[in-house]
Amino acid sequence: MRSAYTRRLFYDLRVESVVSNKLDAVHDVLLMGPGPSCVYPDVYRALAHPTLGHLDPLFIAIMDDIKTLLRTLMQTTNRATLPMSGTGSAGMEAAFVNLVKPGDAVLVLVNGVFGKRMAEVAGRLRAQVDTLEFDWGTPVVPETVAARLQMKDYALVAVVHAETSTGVRNPVDKIGESVKMSGALYLVDAVTSLGGIPVHMDAWGIDLLYSGTQKCLSCPPGLAPLSCSERALAKLRARTTPVPNWYLDLSLLLSYWEGAKRAYHHTAPINMLYGLYQALQCVMAEGLENVYARHRNMHELLVAELGKLGLEILVEPDYRLPMLNAVKVPAGVDEAGVRARLLGEHSIEIGAGLGPLAGKIWRVGLMGHTARAVNVQRLIEALRAEL
Amino acid sequence: MRSAYTRRLFYDLRVESVVSNKLDAVHDVLLMGPGPSCVYPDVYRALAHPTLGHLDPLFIAIMDDIKTLLRTLMQTTNRATLPMSGTGSAGMEAAFVNLVKPGDAVLVLVNGVFGKRMAEVAGRLRAQVDTLEFDWGTPVVPETVAARLQMKDYALVAVVHAETSTGVRNPVDKIGESVKMSGALYLVDAVTSLGGIPVHMDAWGIDLLYSGTQKCLSCPPGLAPLSCSERALAKLRARTTPVPNWYLDLSLLLSYWEGAKRAYHHTAPINMLYGLYQALQCVMAEGLENVYARHRNMHELLVAELGKLGLEILVEPDYRLPMLNAVKVPAGVDEAGVRARLLGEHSIEIGAGLGPLAGKIWRVGLMGHTARAVNVQRLIEALRAEL
Repeated sequence: MRSAYTRRLFYDLRVESVVSNKLDAVHDVLLMGPGPSCVYPDVYRALAHPTLGHLDPLFIAIMDDIKTLLRTLMQTTNRATLPMSGTGSAGMEAAFVNLVKPGDAVLVLVNGVFGKRMAEVAGRLRAQVDTLEFDWGTPVVPETVAARLQMKDYALVAVVHAETSTGVRNPVDKIGESVKMSGALYLVDAVTSLGGIPVHMDAWGIDLLYSGTQKCLSCPPGLAPLSCSERALAKLRARTTPVPNWYLDLSLLLSYWEGAKRAYHHTAPINMLYGLYQALQCVMAEGLENVYARHRNMHELLVAELGKLGLEILVEPDYRLPMLNAVKVPAGVDEAGVRARLLGEHSIEIGAGLGPLAGKIWRVGLMGHTARAVNVQRLIEALRAEL
Repeated sequence: MRSAYTRRLFYDLRVESVVSNKLDAVHDVLLMGPGPSCVYPDVYRALAHPTLGHLDPLFIAIMDDIKTLLRTLMQTTNRATLPMSGTGSAGMEAAFVNLVKPGDAVLVLVNGVFGKRMAEVAGRLRAQVDTLEFDWGTPVVPETVAARLQMKDYALVAVVHAETSTGVRNPVDKIGESVKMSGALYLVDAVTSLGGIPVHMDAWGIDLLYSGTQKCLSCPPGLAPLSCSERALAKLRARTTPVPNWYLDLSLLLSYWEGAKRAYHHTAPINMLYGLYQALQCVMAEGLENVYARHRNMHELLVAELGKLGLEILVEPDYRLPMLNAVKVPAGVDEAGVRARLLGEHSIEIGAGLGPLAGKIWRVGLMGHTARAVNVQRLIEALRAEL
């Protein structure tokens, strides 16, 4: 049956494939970059639980718990609160592809990589995209947004809560006030904020919010928790053309994630959902207020200790994210060399700057399970040795 | 800072969230449905390995091994061979969104749920979709396809190799001959076939092939291995409009998955990739020919044992899939009741029929690590007790 060509290919490739198993070399790295963060030990155990079928009654009960736990974390009563089966960027894709129709006027507030990415995603969906740009390392200014919203009607306004590329917290609550008055839908990227600083989806008037598992939830990357308001769902239902993305079509996903009879859509990523479930249990067991206080305290400890080494933070204190610290690289220091030595000699990962901040900052993450004093001290000692 | 409303919400929801941890109740189920399948013990262990950063040199070396192992499994030399960060359906979405432009004439061969889904996905991307339909439970007829391809020019022809909804193996090799002559791109869904029956991507002239991890690779669901020929990549590069899906844009993904300098796209699902890596190692350690023989032998054992119980297979012998057996429900038997008792009393999951086959068949999977004699015997004993 097999031709000479495929026979040769078969054996050639099989020989090439006898590779050593590099998993044996995987060891603990202290993940202090922009994500992924250190994973809770209980989450690793959860990932290895026996796989159930995606329509197993016990698995469906776990799905229901996940929705409840996510609502608490996001402070929302939205029934449409569920994880997308992809990483945080799939959450961004899902948000725009469901809520934006070709030709819709969309305003994206940009002060870093992830705001730019939002504009790119919306543009690919043939929205008419305007951006309001702010310097990287500074926050979005609500008054500027309010002024723009008085000049032009938008179907949707999008902003990143925690700009992972710069360490800036955008004033999502204040921005939301003028968005609400304008009547536009309000879309917020909470990939890095959720689980690290308070997120009040309903109180802040947010219509669509998405996040990721690999930041302050301390679960490996792979899922994108998302919540959608009734107002946004009504807009989705009023579409006259189908969502041009079957995999992320929220209406189809909801027919699997809720109701008495669950309709198969795609095979859910069962074990990743175990991981998210356990991570949410860990966060709730500690208590949201305690989790936020821990992030804040560890951030203050880090900033104080960095200060003793003569290292400064890029962002003004009022807008600093506790979980993502943009540290200025001192003049004359080999930025990439320090990162490489931290990883190679100390098994500590920190992040590089991106875009206009490349080479100018290190990004030090204190996300979820990473945000502990022992980790801060370990980084400080390593930096002291390497600087 | 917090309003009375959000304070109330905060505590109400927190109380609601003190849910018991249902992971404690998760136990081993013998997964003999249409997927997910039983997971290799080594894969569970792999999932729980420490998370590395997505740009860690060791992780990049693992990514490179995964590409090599996938090429062997798919029998292709395509450099663009990599997993999508979503389940098998994300593979389908990625295949169409990258290769099909609005207005492209697309022919989808339909003889089950997944062929229909392909047509739906392509239609949402504004392709001009024709379908050729064949009765569910019978294979696509290559001569009918050849005749259609002489009548009309198509940019792309799509077919499912192993139609999971019916247990039919479509003659992908024969169909490929006329597709090749027509000049169309050839897209094959190998979600259920890959790792269970031979797949010869290059020899069969396939331009784009995708699969899933939760079938014959016996890894949990969550990734979609995909491979794209140079001819298809050339078509992708010639696009004048961007791919309307940033998350699954193959050009951007390749800039992370290959080359000396890896460009961050999205944060890869690290631990799921450990799982896929280990699953591929398990398959290669056993040897592809041995793996295929095991699937064939277990299928023959199952059919023989079912025959002793008076149970018949829906599909003609020449087109039966070894890993997905459509078993006719005998007259007078409570189809759903038997499935419920198998799960509840025997911890064995089998699948229901879909669409026109709902209520008429059970779908019994023998995928990957599930395809072992001990599992076949356990199912047969349970069926004997329940019928």
